[in-house]
Amino acid sequence: MKTRDRQAYETLAQRFAMVGKLTSVRMLLFWDAQTVMPKGASWGRGEQVAALQELSSDIISEHETQALLVEAENNSEVLDESERANLREMRRLWKRGQAVPATLLAQTARLSQKLQVNWQEAKKLSRFDLFAPGFQELLTLYKEAASAVGEALDLSPYEALMDEYDPGVTSEIVGPLFKELETYLPELRREVLEKQSHWPKPIDIEGDFSVSKQRQFSKQIAAMVGHTDEHNRIDEAPHPFMLPRCPGDARFTTRYDTNKFRAAIKFTLHEAGHAMYELNLPRTLAFQPAGYARGATMHESQSLILDMQAGRSVELLGCLAPRMCEAFTGSGNGWNLSNIFNIYRRINEGYLRSDADEISYLLHILLRYKIERALFADELSVQDIPDAWNQLSEELFGKTPPNDSLGCLQDIHWSAGWIGYFPSYALAAALAAQFFSSAVTDDLAILPALSEGDLHPLIAWGREHVHRKASLQSFNEIVVNATGHPLNAEALKRHLRRRYLEEPIPGEQ
Amino acid sequence: MKTRDRQAYETLAQRFAMVGKLTSVRMLLFWDAQTVMPKGASWGRGEQVAALQELSSDIISEHETQALLVEAENNSEVLDESERANLREMRRLWKRGQAVPATLLAQTARLSQKLQVNWQEAKKLSRFDLFAPGFQELLTLYKEAASAVGEALDLSPYEALMDEYDPGVTSEIVGPLFKELETYLPELRREVLEKQSHWPKPIDIEGDFSVSKQRQFSKQIAAMVGHTDEHNRIDEAPHPFMLPRCPGDARFTTRYDTNKFRAAIKFTLHEAGHAMYELNLPRTLAFQPAGYARGATMHESQSLILDMQAGRSVELLGCLAPRMCEAFTGSGNGWNLSNIFNIYRRINEGYLRSDADEISYLLHILLRYKIERALFADELSVQDIPDAWNQLSEELFGKTPPNDSLGCLQDIHWSAGWIGYFPSYALAAALAAQFFSSAVTDDLAILPALSEGDLHPLIAWGREHVHRKASLQSFNEIVVNATGHPLNAEALKRHLRRRYLEEPIPGEQ
Repeated sequence: MKTRDRQAYETLAQRFAMVGKLTSVRMLLFWDAQTVMPKGASWGRGEQVAALQELSSDIISEHETQALLVEAENNSEVLDESERANLREMRRLWKRGQAVPATLLAQTARLSQKLQVNWQEAKKLSRFDLFAPGFQELLTLYKEAASAVGEALDLSPYEALMDEYDPGVTSEIVGPLFKELETYLPELRREVLEKQSHWPKPIDIEGDFSVSKQRQFSKQIAAMVGHTDEHNRIDEAPHPFMLPRCPGDARFTTRYDTNKFRAAIKFTLHEAGHAMYELNLPRTLAFQPAGYARGATMHESQSLILDMQAGRSVELLGCLAPRMCEAFTGSGNGWNLSNIFNIYRRINEGYLRSDADEISYLLHILLRYKIERALFADELSVQDIPDAWNQLSEELFGKTPPNDSLGCLQDIHWSAGWIGYFPSYALAAALAAQFFSSAVTDDLAILPALSEGDLHPLIAWGREHVHRKASLQSFNEIVVNATGHPLNAEALKRHLRRRYLEEPIPGEQ
Repeated sequence: MKTRDRQAYETLAQRFAMVGKLTSVRMLLFWDAQTVMPKGASWGRGEQVAALQELSSDIISEHETQALLVEAENNSEVLDESERANLREMRRLWKRGQAVPATLLAQTARLSQKLQVNWQEAKKLSRFDLFAPGFQELLTLYKEAASAVGEALDLSPYEALMDEYDPGVTSEIVGPLFKELETYLPELRREVLEKQSHWPKPIDIEGDFSVSKQRQFSKQIAAMVGHTDEHNRIDEAPHPFMLPRCPGDARFTTRYDTNKFRAAIKFTLHEAGHAMYELNLPRTLAFQPAGYARGATMHESQSLILDMQAGRSVELLGCLAPRMCEAFTGSGNGWNLSNIFNIYRRINEGYLRSDADEISYLLHILLRYKIERALFADELSVQDIPDAWNQLSEELFGKTPPNDSLGCLQDIHWSAGWIGYFPSYALAAALAAQFFSSAVTDDLAILPALSEGDLHPLIAWGREHVHRKASLQSFNEIVVNATGHPLNAEALKRHLRRRYLEEPIPGEQ
């Protein structure tokens, strides 16, 4: 009898595993296209990706799936806890899949392909008018899709978009947190700018920053984090990324700019953090919905805990600085510790999100979040985006970008249709601070290990409190279980104040 | 009305294209696993491949496919010629797919995975008794599958196996050709051995054969053949191979052994030939059955026409020798032309197929073909393979291998379940000779171009007579249209006699 009661669940598990496998293959095709694929194969690659997507959505939206879900839910008492979690995730994915008509998805996919080309041109010429009509069209489609999903999931349209990347990160969490940051950060930024105006100017760092040296050092950093050749490889791509979801395959990409060697270190730490999350997901749930990582914010927190929390800490930088100097055969005064800190902990006065320091970065996200919300609340029209951007820039940074290339056209996200994704960057920074603060309290060996260049204890904390949880618990449950509180801005505020205002810089008088 | 008549065909074309795309993705996963995949991902990779295989066979074996085929065939007058060819190929693939139960396929796949590990151990220890029981089991399954396919396609079981790799290469072609080679080659080999006993001993070649130099030279060779970065890349794998079927993606692998630099040149020419065939297949038939290459023999002929016919010709070697000397910063007498020829055109007295010269290679294939036929005719039992091998070795080569590692355990094919594949190696050598002979007669510019290191005219001939034909015509039609005759041994015999006995070696007195 029990066997029969499990049958609906087992069938569902098989189907969703098939989808999980197809998805993981698509991720590999993406990796391949970004790193090694000859450009002449792009048409064929598009066909392959579309075929996998079509099969995946066919499998989930088959007529019986709904009946199987109902049957499995009615018999859920025969399932164990992780199976019940898996069933919840199946229902969630199915709901989302059902809500938006496939034709609408195909339309937005095609349109955003075109719009990305448009955006590149518009950005180059700094002409928003070249971008606006296409974005208006895309936005209309997104609003339609978001309304449909929102209705199915009982969320506002904009929340429905965020929910795709970040299930369970509701406006009850996001709203107050962003409000807090909006009040706190501009003032903090002014304070830090004032403080750093009294510092000496950073000295240029000299050394051999050739790609081969950077490649070697990246491998060294990945090894510090815990990566081995058994599960990892590092390749190069214009936009560094980590490929999720194939169990045992934690390869990631980075980028080597010979004039900016710090970028590669940051990218590598960042992607190595993502990769560790994927590698530590429970193998028993491989390819199953409950076995996936718990969304964009949780994922990004595992990279930021390395590149922002640990990677710029007194402890790790104190250990990394001499190693960098050795690895890049450095010479000159630039390599003394107080200068290295002076470089790493400085408000960057540029206009670009991608180059920003920890504090400005958050303001950049806040700005985009406010614009996206206004667009979805019909309080802002597409043509008014540049004005809104400049006004917000004035409010948050105290200055206006000289043109739209350095302003509202700087990011690929809107053209690529990643609307509702920006918030996760700031939420993840807050979450990383909250996790790091709990981790170093829970395990007093973490900070001393960082001073030795050993990230294993920190990763071990993440493994236990985040990675092994996969999607077995909700976002909120994972955060509360790990830190005692829901996600909030307190740890982030403390962290920024300490790092940028209070913590003495070693070696400085 | 016409539109409705085409509907069954259109539906079939969509389904088979889906299968074509899934297959091309599987090929990419294979490439990835052989070149860059971290070893720790092998379990996940197995799951991905199995998922794609399962979906492919599901799509073809769906109930309606049979009805759609019948309907499309009944309305074939509304189809154009290439669509009719496509429909024929669909029918063929469907027939094969129907003939063997999926469970039998899964059983053989699992068994051959295990047997490959077994074989490695047996080969290392030279103990056939460790290999025999598993191979007996695998052979039984293969006989069962082959009988089922043979019945469906009206072929003998062994022919049914060959037909999987080489549709249309019937025993009327294969039988007489192998008979001819069996009579002709042993005597020819003795003649050449007698002749070369009077030659000076080859002088060792000295130079820098580092991987980086070999890599550079391989790129140079690929460029000679016509490859560009737009469509190609060269990676390294233990067993060089070319990935078929993704339009526009002609990447292949080679291998660099620092003590055997000639191997890389041979591998690269060989795989570059396969790659050109794939690259030149008609894009309009991409992912469709009629758009595939026309089987193993045809494919291998396009690599052998480069590595055996052109690659060891007086013309190309005369041009390559000084380039090799330069590329590998060669020094010493070894690099003079008559010594290079002495090295390239020499009967190799070893026991291994993979190291064999052109003549011995064919005898190696003949030996395996005779054993496979005997096994399938129940004239030979598995346990008697070593004796049969040694006896045939004595007959064909005049000597017996000292142990089974250098004898019947040397190749991976039987353990991997590639039974019925060996013949295509010899057939392809004959076909390459026949094609090359026609090509140099059709286009008098081909040989002079080879002397300049330019393979484009030769590839252009292949493109017109073979590559563009894809599977639009049968094997026999392609061969007869290109050369005026069905595949036979005459050109090969002429070629071997001329190259190894008659053609004067330039620079020799």
